[in-house]
Amino acid sequence: MTANFQKSFIAVHVGAGYHSIAMTDAYKEACQNACLAGLAKLDAGEHALEGAAAAVAVLEDDQITNAGTGSNLNLHGNVECDASIMDGERLLFGAVGALSGVKNPISVAKEVVKEQIKGQMSLGRVPPSVLVGNGALKWACDHDIGVVSGSDMISQKALSAYRKHKQRLMEVEQEARLSAKRSKLDADIEDIVNTPENSLLESIISTPEESLLDTVGVVCMDAKGNVCSASSSGGIALKHPGRVGQTGIFGSGCWAQNGNTDTASVACCTTGCGEHLMRTLLAKECYDSLTGSDNASLAISTVFKNKFLESPMLNGVKFKFGGALVVKCWGHDDVELVWAHTTKSMCIGYMMSGEKKGKTVMSRLSDTSVAGISLSVGGKHFHT
Amino acid sequence: MTANFQKSFIAVHVGAGYHSIAMTDAYKEACQNACLAGLAKLDAGEHALEGAAAAVAVLEDDQITNAGTGSNLNLHGNVECDASIMDGERLLFGAVGALSGVKNPISVAKEVVKEQIKGQMSLGRVPPSVLVGNGALKWACDHDIGVVSGSDMISQKALSAYRKHKQRLMEVEQEARLSAKRSKLDADIEDIVNTPENSLLESIISTPEESLLDTVGVVCMDAKGNVCSASSSGGIALKHPGRVGQTGIFGSGCWAQNGNTDTASVACCTTGCGEHLMRTLLAKECYDSLTGSDNASLAISTVFKNKFLESPMLNGVKFKFGGALVVKCWGHDDVELVWAHTTKSMCIGYMMSGEKKGKTVMSRLSDTSVAGISLSVGGKHFHT
Repeated sequence: MTANFQKSFIAVHVGAGYHSIAMTDAYKEACQNACLAGLAKLDAGEHALEGAAAAVAVLEDDQITNAGTGSNLNLHGNVECDASIMDGERLLFGAVGALSGVKNPISVAKEVVKEQIKGQMSLGRVPPSVLVGNGALKWACDHDIGVVSGSDMISQKALSAYRKHKQRLMEVEQEARLSAKRSKLDADIEDIVNTPENSLLESIISTPEESLLDTVGVVCMDAKGNVCSASSSGGIALKHPGRVGQTGIFGSGCWAQNGNTDTASVACCTTGCGEHLMRTLLAKECYDSLTGSDNASLAISTVFKNKFLESPMLNGVKFKFGGALVVKCWGHDDVELVWAHTTKSMCIGYMMSGEKKGKTVMSRLSDTSVAGISLSVGGKHFHT
Repeated sequence: MTANFQKSFIAVHVGAGYHSIAMTDAYKEACQNACLAGLAKLDAGEHALEGAAAAVAVLEDDQITNAGTGSNLNLHGNVECDASIMDGERLLFGAVGALSGVKNPISVAKEVVKEQIKGQMSLGRVPPSVLVGNGALKWACDHDIGVVSGSDMISQKALSAYRKHKQRLMEVEQEARLSAKRSKLDADIEDIVNTPENSLLESIISTPEESLLDTVGVVCMDAKGNVCSASSSGGIALKHPGRVGQTGIFGSGCWAQNGNTDTASVACCTTGCGEHLMRTLLAKECYDSLTGSDNASLAISTVFKNKFLESPMLNGVKFKFGGALVVKCWGHDDVELVWAHTTKSMCIGYMMSGEKKGKTVMSRLSDTSVAGISLSVGGKHFHT
């Protein structure tokens, strides 16, 4: 760390979802590795944008997460990634959606922000904020971001899970077709869809070594006090090709905004069911709630209750799966980290300049809680 | 109109931007045609979702607009469309981004909503809200939405404009490369970029027969009082392939929410520079402002001033191009339509059940106003 710089801070998570007991140490290690990589950038005096992107890249490269290499496969057996980053200093947002063939999708999102920092392009054109699909891949190539074969990003674990789930899907759809032939389609499809043991979620978590995870994310503050947030996701298993979740959508996947003398700096990232998080603009809501409150834990509880679990936007949705990681900083002397999740578990890591390795928390809903309905909130407050 | 139904209402616009004097009647006619098609659905008792989509489809098919056939061409000379729709009754949102090869992108967005209305898919999978690129095209094919050759959507006018702008872009970039060789790159690029006569905007509006237009949109209320909003766009000329603008982003391109005994129903759609509208979540902000105010004109003025022209999200952006069309309804007896734009002009049409054709307004900034800085607000209030 350069002597003149203040302490930096970073926090990461490897997805709200279900983390098996047996794999807990591996998830924690992934968090620590990401913290180390991100904080190394921040301690070298680099901008929060670089720290957040470096930490996300480590999580993308780790096959244990549902981001980058090792992501869930889509309906056609391919990896398609969403990633986004928001620069709290300049309030610029960059995102990619449904991107295949780039090892680190977050690096494209970061470059999208950096191009915006440069300002207008030739002929007064406005630089893009969101790039998707083949166009995003082309943009990555033009910006010297390394591309890989799509198959290079498929892990054995993801492939094995895909084959199992695809097989189950085909069986269910075959059952539905047979039911249709027996002229009682409606009732039978409803039975099949609504039987818990047939759900994808139950199928995925039925064996301990397999885990249901979503978007990974990072929030950080650099030595100059700039905050940044970033997220990356392979999306839900068997998603339709081209589907973009909250990670690629402004206001939903991440939010970061530097403060001033009157307001704290706040950065947050969300994780969980992309469609639920998007319809509730949960990252923006977390920012609005925390920036206007003196009590970060209470604020995140309130936003999850009022703007997510009881949101009119999710009327009719029985189980709402979401999580958020938020850092709120009043300069470098008062840093508060809070997290909340309605999923079975959420694994978090965090690290401050001067520490040798990050600390980790595996937050789990209590045994009596119900995923998708109950809420767990935790946090740490650092006064230096 | 079915006797038992209340009156329906629809309003449309063909993009905030610059509409040449010579083409004014043609723009107004496009608005009237769209109103007729949308209101025909509503008067037949169909849901607001169908009315909005039918009106947008007419605008997409009209080569005069920058949506569907006749859209601006991207950097590689192709049509790539964004479209979105929000169902105010169920608060469901459907969007497509960077979609090529579908004649009516809005029809895909509408089907995305209708799939969500059905609820979870087999194996408990959550239906997508946002689909992009080739995946969206595949989804359209699977849902029996007709696809066309990409070249079928290219109008002669768009092709001619593309050739001119691409030529100019190549010249500017060549100048920049030469400047670099002369080792004074930075200063020269800045000169080239900032010279008004070199800007794409100036280039496009320099000849009267060519017009700079953006996203088209529709807001409506059906006979049962449900509101809906929808938008569709070919994006800015010479955009990078894969770029998605506000039209494809939740909270930015459209918003619709039925009211109750205490709140009015509000539907709005935005148009203008996609990146500016996205970063300000302008559709959501319009909804929030209008639903909480007794004065719709004042509310839209305030939101454009505080949340757009003076938004911290657009710090550093000198010219902010945006427009919005909003309908606010207290039942069928009190319908208020307002619009606002910072662009040189905005063309609006509106129509109520029982009328033979829609009325139109070509709203223009005054001669002393400055596009991107000044604001024009207008509206109509219907008491029945």
